[in-house]
Amino acid sequence: MSTIDMIEAAAGRLAGHARRTPLLSSPFLDDIAGRRVLVKPECLQHTGSFKFRGAWSAVSALDPDVRARGVIAFSSGNHAQGVAYAARLHGVSAVIIMPSDAPKMKIDNTRALGAEVVLYDRASEDRDALGAKLATERGLTLVKPFDEPLVIAGQGTSGLEIVEQAAGQGVHQADVLVPCGGGGLTAGIALALEARAPGLRVRPAEPEGFDDTARSLLSGQIERNERLSGSLCDAIITPQPGNITFPINKRLCGPGLVVSEDEALRAMALAFARLKIVIEPGGAVALAAALFRPDQIAGDAVIAVASGGNVDAQVFRTALERFAE
Amino acid sequence: MSTIDMIEAAAGRLAGHARRTPLLSSPFLDDIAGRRVLVKPECLQHTGSFKFRGAWSAVSALDPDVRARGVIAFSSGNHAQGVAYAARLHGVSAVIIMPSDAPKMKIDNTRALGAEVVLYDRASEDRDALGAKLATERGLTLVKPFDEPLVIAGQGTSGLEIVEQAAGQGVHQADVLVPCGGGGLTAGIALALEARAPGLRVRPAEPEGFDDTARSLLSGQIERNERLSGSLCDAIITPQPGNITFPINKRLCGPGLVVSEDEALRAMALAFARLKIVIEPGGAVALAAALFRPDQIAGDAVIAVASGGNVDAQVFRTALERFAE
Repeated sequence: MSTIDMIEAAAGRLAGHARRTPLLSSPFLDDIAGRRVLVKPECLQHTGSFKFRGAWSAVSALDPDVRARGVIAFSSGNHAQGVAYAARLHGVSAVIIMPSDAPKMKIDNTRALGAEVVLYDRASEDRDALGAKLATERGLTLVKPFDEPLVIAGQGTSGLEIVEQAAGQGVHQADVLVPCGGGGLTAGIALALEARAPGLRVRPAEPEGFDDTARSLLSGQIERNERLSGSLCDAIITPQPGNITFPINKRLCGPGLVVSEDEALRAMALAFARLKIVIEPGGAVALAAALFRPDQIAGDAVIAVASGGNVDAQVFRTALERFAE
Repeated sequence: MSTIDMIEAAAGRLAGHARRTPLLSSPFLDDIAGRRVLVKPECLQHTGSFKFRGAWSAVSALDPDVRARGVIAFSSGNHAQGVAYAARLHGVSAVIIMPSDAPKMKIDNTRALGAEVVLYDRASEDRDALGAKLATERGLTLVKPFDEPLVIAGQGTSGLEIVEQAAGQGVHQADVLVPCGGGGLTAGIALALEARAPGLRVRPAEPEGFDDTARSLLSGQIERNERLSGSLCDAIITPQPGNITFPINKRLCGPGLVVSEDEALRAMALAFARLKIVIEPGGAVALAAALFRPDQIAGDAVIAVASGGNVDAQVFRTALERFAE
């Protein structure tokens, strides 16, 4: 069970290792949203996404003897890079299991961060069995992407920063919009806000067609996505909310917000022009909701987390070509 | 005469108003440079460049009665936006004198930040006479872009942050590469380092063909650029080093570094991919020097200031198209 004490402890372990990201704003974005917009750019975190926080939290909490045998993770994306880099900085090995059809750049980046990448064939191989075999043979510890209290606690450290930084800008009452996949970042921030800034409330943001958490919050039980691919917002597409994250989010979050892929791309172009940051489509859904769903948000300020920036140049160029003013 | 006391005083006035930008890094950039590369992203500053610091420093130091009459500046670029926004946040008016052929986006942005934009014809009108007339008629105070001690002191506040942040990462001995136009940012940072981190040394970075400061440092006297246009690095093109800034830079700076426009664009593409920040060509020359002039730099770490991010989407797309991996 994740608690504020675990988040505070994770913050202690992350100090001097994870980056304290700033809280950005622009009067031009305020004008579009009709209220103050504060953006927490986790794209500026090590490895380009918030995932480094949870990975560091989990790896740093391991017993040194256990950690020395190495860690293992399943991921084709941001979690892979976060775990690979956290392991490298701890001086231990990391095995990352990726589908053989993952983008070459992501495979190369994960290898360049020092991890051993093991590829498997989605059609013919059982990923979990492969991972279990490797873990047993080598004594590796599995680092789960979201349904793991230490990982949730690590993601929650960004929430502690939001609490301080929002108060520093005079914001004590606002919705905090968080891009939501499995729900680890959402749950971690929600727990931090519950304890330290009860006037701030988390609301998950998702892309159309992949709004499992919004629908789950409405129905009160875990709902699945019909599709699992075909979105530019790949970084935050998961089959369904996590078994550990969802009860937290059900208890603490306000209603989910849903935006289109084009709105995410437009938010990316605005973040380029007005904040000078690079956001990936999945990482832009919360900013898109802040800008383009003003009627679904109350209050004179809104906070949006930009959760990651690992986007192909081609996709980014398309966003600029279509939506830059 | 700018001093460390003026910089400290400016830091006090900027606290809670200017953004404390982080210090970023990526193991991928370290590999290219062959040493640790730390990047100070002033593109994340308000209005997208370090210019907000100097503008705030100057505007905030005015006697309230004088300030209430408003300020005036000449600029078609980053200084215009910095002064406009600093004035707006102080609740006073700003007049910005811009050439009538300035890019429409820059004119629109400056107006949107609340300034009154006065256009003049480069061929037929005398900019300085026009400015003097307006200043006299309305009692406006001129905010110079670099040759002004209060502005230099404001830019120097980024140097104080570099001192603290570099020490926090264990870096006490390094070259600090700074994109250099008129030399205000360079001089401000150099003064801050002289007083607070003598192991850090500023070196100006410039684009080929516009290396007036590098040549002036070599000859020991102010040298002029032959051309004043035709570079994508427009943000840092000035006729010659300033009369106030150059003596400071001559006393404190190491040799200048010069990079090509293509190298600046390549650095922009790498900053996109590895740091998730948007840099303009002129703001990327220091990072380009850090990455592509390893033989001209000593030590196991280098610090590069990314001075601004106000780049047209079209230019940024070109940088990605040509140089993104």
